[in-house]
Amino acid sequence: MDKRNKPVGVFDSGLGGLTVVKEIIKVLPQEGIVYLGDTARVPYGTRSNGIIKQFSEENVNFLLKKNVKCIVIACHTSSAVAGNYLKKEFHNIPIFDVVTPVLKSLEESKKKIGVIGTRATINSKVYSKLNKVVQVPCPLFVPFIEEGEIKGKLIENLVIKYLGKLRVEILVLACTHYPIIRGVIKKVLPNTKLINPGVLIAGKLKKYLIKNNLVNYQRATAKKSFYVTDLNERFIKVSQMFLGENYRVKLKKYSWK
Amino acid sequence: MDKRNKPVGVFDSGLGGLTVVKEIIKVLPQEGIVYLGDTARVPYGTRSNGIIKQFSEENVNFLLKKNVKCIVIACHTSSAVAGNYLKKEFHNIPIFDVVTPVLKSLEESKKKIGVIGTRATINSKVYSKLNKVVQVPCPLFVPFIEEGEIKGKLIENLVIKYLGKLRVEILVLACTHYPIIRGVIKKVLPNTKLINPGVLIAGKLKKYLIKNNLVNYQRATAKKSFYVTDLNERFIKVSQMFLGENYRVKLKKYSWK
Repeated sequence: MDKRNKPVGVFDSGLGGLTVVKEIIKVLPQEGIVYLGDTARVPYGTRSNGIIKQFSEENVNFLLKKNVKCIVIACHTSSAVAGNYLKKEFHNIPIFDVVTPVLKSLEESKKKIGVIGTRATINSKVYSKLNKVVQVPCPLFVPFIEEGEIKGKLIENLVIKYLGKLRVEILVLACTHYPIIRGVIKKVLPNTKLINPGVLIAGKLKKYLIKNNLVNYQRATAKKSFYVTDLNERFIKVSQMFLGENYRVKLKKYSWK
Repeated sequence: MDKRNKPVGVFDSGLGGLTVVKEIIKVLPQEGIVYLGDTARVPYGTRSNGIIKQFSEENVNFLLKKNVKCIVIACHTSSAVAGNYLKKEFHNIPIFDVVTPVLKSLEESKKKIGVIGTRATINSKVYSKLNKVVQVPCPLFVPFIEEGEIKGKLIENLVIKYLGKLRVEILVLACTHYPIIRGVIKKVLPNTKLINPGVLIAGKLKKYLIKNNLVNYQRATAKKSFYVTDLNERFIKVSQMFLGENYRVKLKKYSWK
């Protein structure tokens, strides 16, 4: 098979990574995609670094079997905790994480930067190298969003609790779920610029594929496959919220056993 | 080894099951206990029945290796979804679930009964055989409690959202976490009697051990061991919240690999 026509592999702890896929499809609509969401073991953000590395490694092994040309770690927790580990372990395939493009784009910034993410992402201190940075774990955002609690008083009060006192010029939404509640965050922090790392990684991926002559060369748009390690009615509903209405998602169950 | 002196096995999706262990220790302080909390894959309540059965089976296999004399499924989701399955699969060892004692104690009741639990527990319809019953999934209670959000406006508003309109005489707290917020629930539903199934299962276990001459016969109080499939700082903190201050918990990591 022509290497250019192989799919791009994407994995996430669950379905939040579909917000990253959405951005990839915007800039690279013709690419094939194999997505794996580890819905049987989501969330990763509350677990130990050892387990996060182990689960992430298993996800990469699945994508390698699917013969992908490169891998995007859509999950911020995986990227922050296991990114470097995976790049070392699997040095034969290009692996992109969602943290590096953020660090690159802000490394020269003199502005006051806020980063919000899961407990594991923030504890990893991967964003601490930025100049003026405040990091806030927001562990209840993910369950709220997965429950569809994305507008109204309850989520607004939670956003105020976590971010009400934050005074920053830029806020990095360092979790795949957070773009879903950007409206609520914007309401609480109207003067703060929000950064969705999904947009940055999609741009980086596009540049990489062009530079290395790896852009899909087939005339037709290549297939997008969405695998999950656990499947129920709710996952189907939630996945549509993350991917948006423009693209119909059909989830397939993948069993380790 | 004298069968009486073998430990009681208890498993849970995570650490919430320690509220059940707490009740067992109250009525059977001298019993040895081997606890397994599947903290690497918690929560179960949002997952599919197939995965819940698979994970539960793996937990039972671990406890069997620890040579327990019987097994308590502390997790309501596991009990509701996989209870009967496990009893069939492992018919050589007595297995107790936390649903059956509740059904037994309320089967004759003519009162209006409410049951709150995870999505999977409620969807299992295991409580539907009660006479006058209203069942309400409360999926955000578990993440709130695990985050220590157990008092104040945020949890109060969530309890009001889920239960504010509920008019029942008895409310079954059908999730190991919920006893932790019984104060807040009581505030919203002051005239409702709350039932903690952990108390019922502890009583049932005691009766069973006495009747079958299986009560621990050693003079000294037997050892309590607490295993988890993932371990980090937070799990230690959270476990103490569930078990209470009277008993110091020391978590040990168990790896499937």
